[in-house]
Amino acid sequence: MAHIDLPENVPGIIGPLMQYPETARHLNGLAEALLRGSSSLTPAEREVIATYVSSQNQCIFCMSSHGAAARYLLGSEAGVVDLVKADYASAPIGDKLKALLAIAGQVQQGGRRVTEAHVAEARKAGADDQAIHDTVLIAAAFCMYNRYVDGLATLIPDDPAEYDIIGARIAKNGYSRTVSEG
Amino acid sequence: MAHIDLPENVPGIIGPLMQYPETARHLNGLAEALLRGSSSLTPAEREVIATYVSSQNQCIFCMSSHGAAARYLLGSEAGVVDLVKADYASAPIGDKLKALLAIAGQVQQGGRRVTEAHVAEARKAGADDQAIHDTVLIAAAFCMYNRYVDGLATLIPDDPAEYDIIGARIAKNGYSRTVSEG
Repeated sequence: MAHIDLPENVPGIIGPLMQYPETARHLNGLAEALLRGSSSLTPAEREVIATYVSSQNQCIFCMSSHGAAARYLLGSEAGVVDLVKADYASAPIGDKLKALLAIAGQVQQGGRRVTEAHVAEARKAGADDQAIHDTVLIAAAFCMYNRYVDGLATLIPDDPAEYDIIGARIAKNGYSRTVSEG
Repeated sequence: MAHIDLPENVPGIIGPLMQYPETARHLNGLAEALLRGSSSLTPAEREVIATYVSSQNQCIFCMSSHGAAARYLLGSEAGVVDLVKADYASAPIGDKLKALLAIAGQVQQGGRRVTEAHVAEARKAGADDQAIHDTVLIAAAFCMYNRYVDGLATLIPDDPAEYDIIGARIAKNGYSRTVSEG
């Protein structure tokens, strides 16, 4: 049972987005701009960062749905998503994404933990200002989305197939249409 | 020095909002809807919750600017802002706001920490669904804004007078116009 009245049988963040459209408009707009808008990072890289932060926050709904979106976008390389969650340092991903995941992990614990050394490491691996900005804001934003989903005790599906459907829909349509299609 | 190039001498979140307008639009829109839009909580109550969460996250810029906005809105009761930051349980505020601050404090630590008992306590003190929703989302959103400000190591003014100016501007104009006026 969620802590407040929400549409029945609607999973995760989709319930509060439907019930509270005035804030939903901006929450969806932010996700669309941040995860699908212009960036020096690919949508797949951004979904991997979102999935990693959600796993660190132990948010099952966000970790599973954005993990499914990342797998859909990665195609034949979908297996890296679980490897990143388990231990990104040993995952078969480039040094740039590893350095950005290190920054995202610090942001998840608190913004003041990001040091000049973290940022220098990311720049050395090829990250530009936009990539560093987007990584910090994706990590920060998922500290919000994760808490919104879990702080209201929303419905969390058990069936992995449900997340595959949500992930494919996100990957194909982005975030602007997610609520009306909920 | 901020971790990325930002407009010079522009404090806190205003620098990244000016430099990255595509995400700024939604970050400002969310703040406006959440802190100034329709709610069963007053703008002052919502600024107090934002200030408290920012203080728990040790985000000097957000704590100081939203604290100044809350003091401006509270007028003769402005003194409660510092008392809430020090120990909200003993502050001269109503039971409803105390129960909502308890929920906000749990969300700050992690969404899954909000229990049915926290919510029951807030309802007993007169909080409705909208108040509980808005409290959870304000607390979650400031876990984002705080990390965005500090994760990029933005400029943090030392002079309290600067925050009084920012706080008064927020209180009078809201958030939609903050960037263009920055």
